[in-house]
Amino acid sequence: MDLSTLKNRQIRLAQRPVGLPGPECWQATEEAVTAPQEGGVLCQTLALSLDPAMRGWMNEGKSYIPPVEIGAVMRAGGIGRVIASENAAFPVGALVTGGPGVQDYFLVPGDQIKRTGLARIDPRLGSVTQWLNVLGMPGMTGYFGLMDVGQPKAGETVVVSGAAGAVGQTVGQLAKIKGCRVVGIAGGEAKCEWVVKELGFDACIDYKNGSVKDGLKQHCPDGIDVYFDNVGGEILDTVLTRINRKARIIICGAISQYNNTTAVQGPKNYLSLLVNRARMEGIVVFDYAPRYMEAITEMAAYLKDGRMKSKEDVVRGTVADFPATLPKLFKGENFGKLVLQLAD
Amino acid sequence: MDLSTLKNRQIRLAQRPVGLPGPECWQATEEAVTAPQEGGVLCQTLALSLDPAMRGWMNEGKSYIPPVEIGAVMRAGGIGRVIASENAAFPVGALVTGGPGVQDYFLVPGDQIKRTGLARIDPRLGSVTQWLNVLGMPGMTGYFGLMDVGQPKAGETVVVSGAAGAVGQTVGQLAKIKGCRVVGIAGGEAKCEWVVKELGFDACIDYKNGSVKDGLKQHCPDGIDVYFDNVGGEILDTVLTRINRKARIIICGAISQYNNTTAVQGPKNYLSLLVNRARMEGIVVFDYAPRYMEAITEMAAYLKDGRMKSKEDVVRGTVADFPATLPKLFKGENFGKLVLQLAD
Repeated sequence: MDLSTLKNRQIRLAQRPVGLPGPECWQATEEAVTAPQEGGVLCQTLALSLDPAMRGWMNEGKSYIPPVEIGAVMRAGGIGRVIASENAAFPVGALVTGGPGVQDYFLVPGDQIKRTGLARIDPRLGSVTQWLNVLGMPGMTGYFGLMDVGQPKAGETVVVSGAAGAVGQTVGQLAKIKGCRVVGIAGGEAKCEWVVKELGFDACIDYKNGSVKDGLKQHCPDGIDVYFDNVGGEILDTVLTRINRKARIIICGAISQYNNTTAVQGPKNYLSLLVNRARMEGIVVFDYAPRYMEAITEMAAYLKDGRMKSKEDVVRGTVADFPATLPKLFKGENFGKLVLQLAD
Repeated sequence: MDLSTLKNRQIRLAQRPVGLPGPECWQATEEAVTAPQEGGVLCQTLALSLDPAMRGWMNEGKSYIPPVEIGAVMRAGGIGRVIASENAAFPVGALVTGGPGVQDYFLVPGDQIKRTGLARIDPRLGSVTQWLNVLGMPGMTGYFGLMDVGQPKAGETVVVSGAAGAVGQTVGQLAKIKGCRVVGIAGGEAKCEWVVKELGFDACIDYKNGSVKDGLKQHCPDGIDVYFDNVGGEILDTVLTRINRKARIIICGAISQYNNTTAVQGPKNYLSLLVNRARMEGIVVFDYAPRYMEAITEMAAYLKDGRMKSKEDVVRGTVADFPATLPKLFKGENFGKLVLQLAD
């Protein structure tokens, strides 16, 4: 392949957002593509994973991962195809998962392969977009958050917010497979109906149309044993009023709070943890990297035998569509895992 | 003993408080004393335990224990002496721990002995007031909260708020014995000095005089691994900004919030749990009743060999002094475990 003909379009962080990230936060650039040196690989980005966590990466300050620097290519996970290689483990044509960033091509030097977590994916286990969903970061987050922190037992009631989102769909389906009663919380009739009819949740509460409190009362007659929280805010507070003794709350995200321009709303009902001897615990998926294969193997089998479905909201476009696509997440406009597909 | 000469003075809950419980919440009554039936015991109350948790018991609504009913004798733990007995396990003269309520005498029918947790105490292990402190509920709370939920490891940094209070002094001294760096948070110079000089904490931050944030920065150079929270509010929020990865936060109480007339202040920095993969977990001491002897045996040995001290703030008086004494807790006026001693 003649690399000199390729143009690498990129989206860089131009400024840190206040509230919802608008177009002013981004800058489009274009660079030449360079060939890999010994041990390195050059990949074409096929699909980018758009995740709520990206909002946090845009903020300044200490977190579980350093912020994206101003002027840097926006960080993003994704799937690529090797188009030039000086590394026998990654032959041309191989599909890989890694962190391409929001750009058409990404070069991974030999000494960065391990650090960036570049790994081949097996297309027989799932499609490119499924590898960004149930078999990707959201799936891993849901799997280890639920199993390791939530520790659900058959017969228990599991509630998950963002139920139609990437993490939520994995959590709910997995909890069903493990024998739990599963109640989702999602926004809008279409999502709620899909979660129940297609994914097999026992119920789904539409927080946009009606009271979450009443919904929990109705659909969780035995209380809540495990709550997987993707949203924070009022919904977390409402769930806290209905947890059982020794309940486990997995703090995975707080999408309702990410674009606040005022302080985060803390859970004013947190003393329910005391009354119920319950636990609230955070999870960061990267901690489980050594165990990803365990989860992938198990969930690929569920995808194959039909016990699990994987729904992606795929936007086809170029990196230039990234700035307008990301906010869909924060407006609840995505239906399933949000993916920006750049190439096939 | 001629029981007919005895008058049982009582303090009953007259109305539920709004904010700090004032005199209007209480009603003084007097009753005759009746002799125990077969299996029962009659005790004289020697000392009452005054605890922050009492404020919660005065509220209506579901909690870890039913609320005190309007018109009922106020619930209180305490130490009594058997003065009439129809139960060989509790001979006249024996000292007992139980829940006398705020009254001079308490009768425990034979079929209520187990339910009320009436148990003899061994005066050789500690004084009556120590049996309400390190060897009593606060001590058990501190012991099991720290050891079971906090799981401190030698070399870790443990922070405890309400450090000069009943639970706090046990937690801090125990954590020192277990080889931790221990930093207290307390109100006022006298308490802070005592915590460091007498109890051997590494440091104590005076939240009434200076910044808790700066204090934590100075005294916890390696971050915070375990935080035992007795206060909630701003202090909890400040600690959350300095916790380490995999930190454990024990939610034991929230004395700063108990007399709020507005909503409880939720920890707005709770997403630090996510960033740090940390845990916040509630504890209710009653769950550990089957294991109390384990803690008592261990801590009585520390009292004996001088590694642990037990400081009580003993108010001598009658049950009529209860209404004016309880609020000391919420104003931070007690120095050590608050006890109302009625008799010797």
